[in-house]
Amino acid sequence: MAFTAVELIEIKRDGGTLPPEGIEWLIRAYTDGQVPDYQMSSMAMAVFFRGLDSEELAAWTAAMLHSGDVLDFSDIPARKVDKHSTGGVGDKISIPLAPLVASLGVVVPMMSGRGLGHTGGTLDKLESIPGFTTQLDPARFREVLESTGLVLAGQSESLVPADRMLYALRDATATVPSLPLISSSIMSKKLAEGLDGLLLDVKTGSGAFMQTLEGSRELAKTMVGIGERQGVRTVALITWMGQPLGREVGNANEISESIAVLRGDGPADVTELTLTFGEVMLELAGVDGGRDALEAAISSGRALEKFIEVTLAQGGDPSVLENPALLPTCAHEAVITAEREGYVTGCDALIVGAAATRLGAGRDRKEDSVDPGVAITLEAKVGDRVSVGDPLATVRYGDPKRWESQRESLALAWTVGDEKPESQPLIIERIDAT
Amino acid sequence: MAFTAVELIEIKRDGGTLPPEGIEWLIRAYTDGQVPDYQMSSMAMAVFFRGLDSEELAAWTAAMLHSGDVLDFSDIPARKVDKHSTGGVGDKISIPLAPLVASLGVVVPMMSGRGLGHTGGTLDKLESIPGFTTQLDPARFREVLESTGLVLAGQSESLVPADRMLYALRDATATVPSLPLISSSIMSKKLAEGLDGLLLDVKTGSGAFMQTLEGSRELAKTMVGIGERQGVRTVALITWMGQPLGREVGNANEISESIAVLRGDGPADVTELTLTFGEVMLELAGVDGGRDALEAAISSGRALEKFIEVTLAQGGDPSVLENPALLPTCAHEAVITAEREGYVTGCDALIVGAAATRLGAGRDRKEDSVDPGVAITLEAKVGDRVSVGDPLATVRYGDPKRWESQRESLALAWTVGDEKPESQPLIIERIDAT
Repeated sequence: MAFTAVELIEIKRDGGTLPPEGIEWLIRAYTDGQVPDYQMSSMAMAVFFRGLDSEELAAWTAAMLHSGDVLDFSDIPARKVDKHSTGGVGDKISIPLAPLVASLGVVVPMMSGRGLGHTGGTLDKLESIPGFTTQLDPARFREVLESTGLVLAGQSESLVPADRMLYALRDATATVPSLPLISSSIMSKKLAEGLDGLLLDVKTGSGAFMQTLEGSRELAKTMVGIGERQGVRTVALITWMGQPLGREVGNANEISESIAVLRGDGPADVTELTLTFGEVMLELAGVDGGRDALEAAISSGRALEKFIEVTLAQGGDPSVLENPALLPTCAHEAVITAEREGYVTGCDALIVGAAATRLGAGRDRKEDSVDPGVAITLEAKVGDRVSVGDPLATVRYGDPKRWESQRESLALAWTVGDEKPESQPLIIERIDAT
Repeated sequence: MAFTAVELIEIKRDGGTLPPEGIEWLIRAYTDGQVPDYQMSSMAMAVFFRGLDSEELAAWTAAMLHSGDVLDFSDIPARKVDKHSTGGVGDKISIPLAPLVASLGVVVPMMSGRGLGHTGGTLDKLESIPGFTTQLDPARFREVLESTGLVLAGQSESLVPADRMLYALRDATATVPSLPLISSSIMSKKLAEGLDGLLLDVKTGSGAFMQTLEGSRELAKTMVGIGERQGVRTVALITWMGQPLGREVGNANEISESIAVLRGDGPADVTELTLTFGEVMLELAGVDGGRDALEAAISSGRALEKFIEVTLAQGGDPSVLENPALLPTCAHEAVITAEREGYVTGCDALIVGAAATRLGAGRDRKEDSVDPGVAITLEAKVGDRVSVGDPLATVRYGDPKRWESQRESLALAWTVGDEKPESQPLIIERIDAT
């Protein structure tokens, strides 16, 4: 069957269903450069308005997935399981989670991204460990995975080239917020990792990409459906991102906090999410033991040992994991204090994340570099009681000018009221394949 | 105010109203090459779904209009009036109409297009007159207009470059059938001609671009609104395009039929439309006399003389106008005959137009050339009584292979039934500015 891009765009524009072979042709022809950007952006906008049904979405994701190499670790007998988060502020869960479950025998070929906009990136955080490299070629990726049962790397250039092209195009054509395009982008990348199981952490709330529970639920269900159709057991947890996770927002300081979790003295919310996610990953891997086993791996030091092991394998200096005070830090420090007495009723993740980015912890544009020492430490979070003058946050920064430009807006992140706010559950719901 | 293309696309995507300065910036930046095709096609698709309100449409059309040169004939005292048709099969009305009204003192700076798809083009028809050139530079265009009160030419490259770029892009991105994009495209081109008045012939029916009366009415009202906002008195007539106009479909044969109209012995439908359109153009030009004056210009030979005059001015051989048998013709002839007795109930304009194009009278792609001698002469039209074996059409063609491929489909254009069909009014309604 022969297709033309114009015919396919017309079908979608008019609310019709794209034939699977048409989708396959379109994505391949786009990746090959036969279909130009201007046709693909028109299609993306038509998809924004008309959506894709589950058959179309399966074909679209499969076509993206097969636009490049697909990893195959089927020769490694244990089940391969990864976790993906839709992105939050202070979200370092992957960093303690991956070594924790790997220490119990789950094989974790984790590929992460860099921070963009107000959310941090796992790769940037890991790279604040001196020497730690996240750019591994496919052979080295496999070696580390085979030797340690775990690898923490960036996406290889050879995987899912269609997604890289389409994502850049969507960014420039106002076609990012489309449920099928978001979910096929995420899932094609994860499915290329050669997984048996996948845990999706779908954030909801003011600091998340999806700000409503309904939107998050829809995204979670869509992605779980895609995973199952591709034969990968997929579970989504919808988690709250109203305030930043943990007390640390930045890079090196988030590594510190991750180590604390692996030592058994991390903040309650990060610890709780790490353990809950760990339970689901053990389940997906068919590894027994559950929460008890996870807690034992922390108290015995096995989990931290696994993190040290993978750090060594990826060229990092393990001494900073034993003594986090050696991690990079910035020269300047400032404190934001409460201007009234009461209970903290809000700590806006979006504002904190944006301030951290502007101070140099993240990037607005892909080509920006990141300062690993920039750190916002939250001294007061939702539900805490504060008096006038109590610290809300301690900020470390390298560039006083940047700090001056952020001071006022960062202070707006906190709201303080007379009534103690009701506590919000961290994990809102679990979505399994139907 | 500074704009980015992404922000403007987002506004339109989400159903908002684009600021006029934003539209102006976008069209200018697109014409300059600053805004790439892939952003403009995404915007075009958003406009397809969300539309443009009348303020946005006015700004969009004005921005297109001012993307290149705008002609100015204000030093010519008489009013400048043109007619535009949305395109039909056998629609040669411009050819007798322009000299007819010009012979009565209306100044007609007519710019026409070439045939594309199933509709013929005025330029292609005129060029079947040996030597007749429709490509005039601006200086020559003005000279012909000043000396004869009339010029029949193609659009100058320097006019409305944004439309040429956007039209090609829309064609490749399935964003052609958008009312605001269609109407701003047509109107920006006509408004660049420096007119005081404009008559729009909006075709409706199976052979027209807009196949429903409702769609045609909406298009007519939108274009009339744009014209009035730009200070050009604009009237639209909605006319029926269920069957081809006149008896001749092709190029040279349509010139023959046009001459017949100017001699007073053209087919009733073409004559009627020519006179009715002529009346509106006289009205728009403020020239008295109405239908009587038009009929007198035909019977006195003044109208035909004006056609000879403009033909001479544009390099054409006037002898073919005095003796149309000298016009180019094809070597082969075939006849399609009726297979049953009865009344012709349908003569599908789309089928006849498509067959003429495929035989070489039109083009599927811009770069194709046209054979002026290809001719379909309709021997039976809607309402005519036919017996078995009576001719439905005489076809002249140059390439027997092409004819073999078209014979069967062309024959399907006619439907013959027992009941005489009700006659359909040619002119359905007139739309004036409100």
